[in-house]
Amino acid sequence: MSHTHQTAPTQYTEANGIRFAYRRFGKTGGVPLVMNMHFTGTMDHWDPLVTDGLAAGREIILFNNAGISSSSGDVPTSIEEMAANAVAFIRALALDKVDVLGFSLGGLIAQEITLQAPDLVRKLILVGTGPRSGDGMATLTPEAQSIFGATYSEPDELWAHVFFTESKKSQAKAHEFLKRFRLRVEGRDPEVSEKVAPAQIAALGKWGEPRENPFVYLKAITQPTLVVNGDNDVIIYTSNSVILQQNIPDAQLILYPDANHGSQYQYPEIFVAHVGLFLDA
Amino acid sequence: MSHTHQTAPTQYTEANGIRFAYRRFGKTGGVPLVMNMHFTGTMDHWDPLVTDGLAAGREIILFNNAGISSSSGDVPTSIEEMAANAVAFIRALALDKVDVLGFSLGGLIAQEITLQAPDLVRKLILVGTGPRSGDGMATLTPEAQSIFGATYSEPDELWAHVFFTESKKSQAKAHEFLKRFRLRVEGRDPEVSEKVAPAQIAALGKWGEPRENPFVYLKAITQPTLVVNGDNDVIIYTSNSVILQQNIPDAQLILYPDANHGSQYQYPEIFVAHVGLFLDA
Repeated sequence: MSHTHQTAPTQYTEANGIRFAYRRFGKTGGVPLVMNMHFTGTMDHWDPLVTDGLAAGREIILFNNAGISSSSGDVPTSIEEMAANAVAFIRALALDKVDVLGFSLGGLIAQEITLQAPDLVRKLILVGTGPRSGDGMATLTPEAQSIFGATYSEPDELWAHVFFTESKKSQAKAHEFLKRFRLRVEGRDPEVSEKVAPAQIAALGKWGEPRENPFVYLKAITQPTLVVNGDNDVIIYTSNSVILQQNIPDAQLILYPDANHGSQYQYPEIFVAHVGLFLDA
Repeated sequence: MSHTHQTAPTQYTEANGIRFAYRRFGKTGGVPLVMNMHFTGTMDHWDPLVTDGLAAGREIILFNNAGISSSSGDVPTSIEEMAANAVAFIRALALDKVDVLGFSLGGLIAQEITLQAPDLVRKLILVGTGPRSGDGMATLTPEAQSIFGATYSEPDELWAHVFFTESKKSQAKAHEFLKRFRLRVEGRDPEVSEKVAPAQIAALGKWGEPRENPFVYLKAITQPTLVVNGDNDVIIYTSNSVILQQNIPDAQLILYPDANHGSQYQYPEIFVAHVGLFLDA
């Protein structure tokens, strides 16, 4: 029987002294796609329309990095350490070539994975993310502070504002997404502990702080890269996606209309098609 | 027999007192795609890999606007008049709904077609182009002046520098393109007269001149729009594609790596796939 986002069992592997939780499903035989999650997210936060859509063409590997939910260990306070853990996890699966996707915080980790283990990474996909010392990345943006600081009648409602714009059309898509990411009922990940957010915020702050010639490091990412974002990302400003595209030597950029930080959840079908074209080219 | 870029006969229709030359081929039954050509170009300047690629999914209509090559009349000295002629041409074919693609100068005309005849246009594709009063658009850019002002051993070589970057990889793609756009041998368009360039430059200058709130007009383009460019366009700077995306309400942006003004000729297969996804969505 072939598994889906809803049915793939959570498996475990050990590396770096950490017991990593992961799920693996989709079409085997090619280069698997390893997906790196956003701030405070678990494997359950991926959109099944995206993961199952991508899984039609390739094997998908979701995982919780160290200290997140069903994985043991502590969340490190630097992106570099998070990436080192991710590399250890990938190698523990005995994989020697993967495609890497990172969303938001996961996109920072994906860049670092590529820099730390260039031979391991075939292609890179950076979604709703930015470079070191990016535009407005030294701290949470004012919009992010306001959205994450607000109280919502339903806690999931937070993500309707983090990932979607306030337009009627985008909010309608938000509520479709909120249903989809609750579809998996059996074997869901436990919620993250209260230690996750502070450590991740510390790591984000170090990554985002100003430095000289901050974008030079991107020249070392020689893998074909796809940069994707909404045209109105208020969490990691859209201008950062342009900076990534302009500084990574072989990068394509796609921006979606009337879309905020989670554009791939607003346009899951077209995102899946664009990623498929990029990975299969 | 179904025609291709190489075999489609040049046909003629009359409108606005002009005899328009056009070619029509591809899969009938849907919304045809009308393609607007760049500075001093004729129907023969399109890349057959692009036109035949697109024609697999829809009917393609190439034409020479007024005063260009095999079309009669004079080249107007404003984009608005060029667009009025294009609208008259489309209506003369008894079409009441089309998709419109414009490349470079043709992209300015495509915007004006959409503004002048919003009911006629279903979707809009803007390639290597920019808005009124765009970045560096008051005159030819310094790079464009240098490239258009140089002398080439083979005249076609001009296009290798207008459309492609100076990287080895991009120049290799340029020389594949230069072969492709000479593949049609029978029934080619006559070269444009010496009156074309000055009139088109006058129109470009008026479009590009500074004005107050120059981008507000883009809010009136409510059609789904796809903006495409190379990441290093030195003829109409890439920043103008970002401006188009950020100001047209429902616009998607795609930028291709290591690519100049003619990115669709450097990546014809992926461009055709991206356009197909956009038009069929």
